[in-house]
Parts: sequence; C-alpha cells; structure tokens
Amino acid sequence: MASIFTKIVNGEIPAYKIAEDDRFLAFLDINPLTKGHTLVIPKQETDYLFDLDADLYADMQRFAHKIAKALKPAMQTKRVGVAVIGFEVPHAHVHLIPINGMSEMNFSLPKLKLSPAEFEAITAKIKAEL
Amino acid sequence: MASIFTKIVNGEIPAYKIAEDDRFLAFLDINPLTKGHTLVIPKQETDYLFDLDADLYADMQRFAHKIAKALKPAMQTKRVGVAVIGFEVPHAHVHLIPINGMSEMNFSLPKLKLSPAEFEAITAKIKAEL
Repeated sequence: MASIFTKIVNGEIPAYKIAEDDRFLAFLDINPLTKGHTLVIPKQETDYLFDLDADLYADMQRFAHKIAKALKPAMQTKRVGVAVIGFEVPHAHVHLIPINGMSEMNFSLPKLKLSPAEFEAITAKIKAEL
Repeated sequence: MASIFTKIVNGEIPAYKIAEDDRFLAFLDINPLTKGHTLVIPKQETDYLFDLDADLYADMQRFAHKIAKALKPAMQTKRVGVAVIGFEVPHAHVHLIPINGMSEMNFSLPKLKLSPAEFEAITAKIKAEL
C-alpha cells in the first residue's frame, strides 16, 4: 500500500507544498512543532533514510539545504533545526524546523493547531524566499 | 577563540575518532543519548550548519551517510536517527544516534555515563563496520 507521503506526491492527498523537483518534495508538516515546520521526502518510497544510496541521499540533503535557507528568513528564526527519527511514517523524511532555542526541537511537545489560512500564509512566505 | 570541536580536529583535545578525511570528522559524543551516538562536523569552523555552502553541506551529509551505514550494524539498532539543533557548541555538527524507538531521540533525557574502556570498545565496533 502506498504511504501517506506517496499519496501526497501523487496528489491523492492535499498538502501545503513548498517546492519539488523530479525526485524530491518539500511540504508543511500538518502537525508542526513550530510555524514553518517542513518535511522533505524522496518521491521514491523508501522506509529507512539511510537505505537511500549515498548519491540520492546527498542530493536530497542539497535540496533540503535550499529549503532551509528560505525557512530562516521566512519565519524569522535564529536557526533551522534538522531531525530524522523514522518511526512515524514508513517513508523517509527529514524534518526542517525553524527554531529560536533547543527546547523547541522536542517532539514530545504538543503540536501547533493552525488554520488552513495560516498554513497558506506560511507557504506563501517560504516560497517568496526561495 | 577556537571551538572545542576545532581543538578536537587539531588534536589539542582527545576524542574517540571514528573516521575523518581532509574536510570532515566523525567522533563519539562524550555525553551520548545512546551507545554509538556520533557527531559529524566540518573541519572548517562554521557556527550555523546552513551557512555551509550547498556543495560542502551535501558532501558532509554524504560522509555522514557512510558513518550511519556502519553505526546500525555496529550497535545493532533498528535505525540511526539524525538531529541538528545548533545551540550547544558554535561549530556545526550533525548528531547520528543509534535508536530502537522514537523516545530515545529526546535530548532532555539524561546522558549515558560510559567508561573510557566502553568508549574504546564502541569505537572499535563502529570502525570494524566501516
């Protein structure tokens, strides 16, 4: 069965898409830790990140670098943190999280509840920095 | 003033080194969340990870990929998680953390206290998988 992220890639499930090319997609996490929390995924469904071959992995990180460079000014944070955990959805994904301090990178914190209008405004802000 | 990581690069402070080349170094975190918790750094001192240019960043991640591929069998965990937070030491570093579940990736958990003999044994195990 296709992962929820493959369904997003295929347009079967809507998402707030930030950027994509033929191999990678960046979209907003629908349960964000902070505003602008973005997921970067390979379009090719792979469960475990480090099962991606070294070239594809490095290219995915290069794609993520571009997104992170836009996220910081868009969300006006001090940094963009990175996390890959890999037990939530069986489709490798890199979390890019705009943060102002260490404590914001805690996945056990309650997630933000944002309205569609808020997600759309964030998407537009990030895309304007790309 | 040189960062503590630059001092490790220069051999002024000892570390349990896993691998290095002319641009990158991997060594064990002295305050690990789990056994095998490794830091990957650029030798060129840079505070914020995404200030590395895209090529150097992608190459650093390619270097990290090789380490992660060795960490999983060496430590016999389900996954290797990735985290970059960036408020601890002003020298960009990627945490590679062997984990069996999400809860182990929590930086607010108490760190393991390992003896030099344990760190040396872990270093040898990881190097044997490289």
